[in-house]
Amino acid sequence: MRIDVVTIFPELIENYTSASILKKAQEKNLVKIKVHNLRWFTLDRHQTVDDYPFGGGPGMVLKPEPIYRAVNFIRSYTRSVPRIILPSPQGKVFHQKKAQELAKERHLLFICGRYQGIDERVLDLLQCEEISIGDYVLSGGELPTLVIIEAVVRLIPGVLGDGESIEYDSFTDGLLGPPQFTRPRVFQNLSVPQVLLSGNHQLIAKWRYEKALEKTKKVRPELLNLVKKEKE
Amino acid sequence: MRIDVVTIFPELIENYTSASILKKAQEKNLVKIKVHNLRWFTLDRHQTVDDYPFGGGPGMVLKPEPIYRAVNFIRSYTRSVPRIILPSPQGKVFHQKKAQELAKERHLLFICGRYQGIDERVLDLLQCEEISIGDYVLSGGELPTLVIIEAVVRLIPGVLGDGESIEYDSFTDGLLGPPQFTRPRVFQNLSVPQVLLSGNHQLIAKWRYEKALEKTKKVRPELLNLVKKEKE
Repeated sequence: MRIDVVTIFPELIENYTSASILKKAQEKNLVKIKVHNLRWFTLDRHQTVDDYPFGGGPGMVLKPEPIYRAVNFIRSYTRSVPRIILPSPQGKVFHQKKAQELAKERHLLFICGRYQGIDERVLDLLQCEEISIGDYVLSGGELPTLVIIEAVVRLIPGVLGDGESIEYDSFTDGLLGPPQFTRPRVFQNLSVPQVLLSGNHQLIAKWRYEKALEKTKKVRPELLNLVKKEKE
Repeated sequence: MRIDVVTIFPELIENYTSASILKKAQEKNLVKIKVHNLRWFTLDRHQTVDDYPFGGGPGMVLKPEPIYRAVNFIRSYTRSVPRIILPSPQGKVFHQKKAQELAKERHLLFICGRYQGIDERVLDLLQCEEISIGDYVLSGGELPTLVIIEAVVRLIPGVLGDGESIEYDSFTDGLLGPPQFTRPRVFQNLSVPQVLLSGNHQLIAKWRYEKALEKTKKVRPELLNLVKKEKE
């Protein structure tokens, strides 16, 4: 998979993708991540990427031309038609199924917004897919881009090491995960639940399912309705 | 505000918080962010932070003792009782109102999970508040921690510069934001909507509200039901 990112803060993306699992995935040649500074695609001396919004209001809006040029450059340079994603609070909400869908793509291109947003015309022209990572406001698209990249790349076969497994991921079966325990058996007078020491795999599976159900009921009851709906 | 972060990948947090808005907020002394390597709080030669889960299953679980020691160290060092947050897919879902609530705190402490999770006993003992940034799976708590920190810190008065404003944030009035336009007036044969050039602030406000409503209806109809419910 190839991933391109267009941003005015390339170091925010590069610092993160050059460490931990995203670094390893690149070293294994399972993904190639390339970051482009939006300012490279300006034509004026001041490398202007933003301007005042028409109609007034606070803040600045990212201009259409540099983004349009950046995308066309990436398209012609890679000779590929990437799926263009714009992380934005205006998008549909990202979830694990979307991550699984994106993990099958060959080429993703992320455009990171900043300030009050991006000129709407360039988003229409480029047919950007707006994706929101949740109902909260951040200062730009950089963190949401990293969130989507990490969620997607860890699903590519071969990326995860032994410490982690996608088999028991939360949400995979529509429930939250069960509680986990490791050594020591007694910590601060608290013992590990007896059943986990029993060696009886059936009992353990049952206990974990019940605990996961209990936690989901308490914290996220709406997830249970979704599971029901899907089964119907 | 003081923010402490406990993680086995301190560079993932530091690289991000030492740039952009979080850097500026620290330079203005509006927030102090301190990152602690969980491995500093191990006692063995190999600095072991994880172990196999009791009851079997794939992956590793973070051990309770280093986390317990790290939190006690931070509490005694800062002589403060921080609000402890554990980003986790098992938590309640983060949203803008939660960011506003956390922005009023004086001291936040984030514990970043990794692998299959953290020993449940230490979470109970420390009364951690589990917060999920969305229904997708990441490789650790580092990105969610950065997301929550950025959403919270930008709400602290004095943090935001001129380019951005919290006044027109999405979700503030329960709707998605309106489309934005900036110069040039015509881009690739697409004109800026005439009303935005009219200078009539009432008309512009009405147009923006209608467009925000239209977009919300199309992309996130469930948000409109929430707005209705709150008004009732």
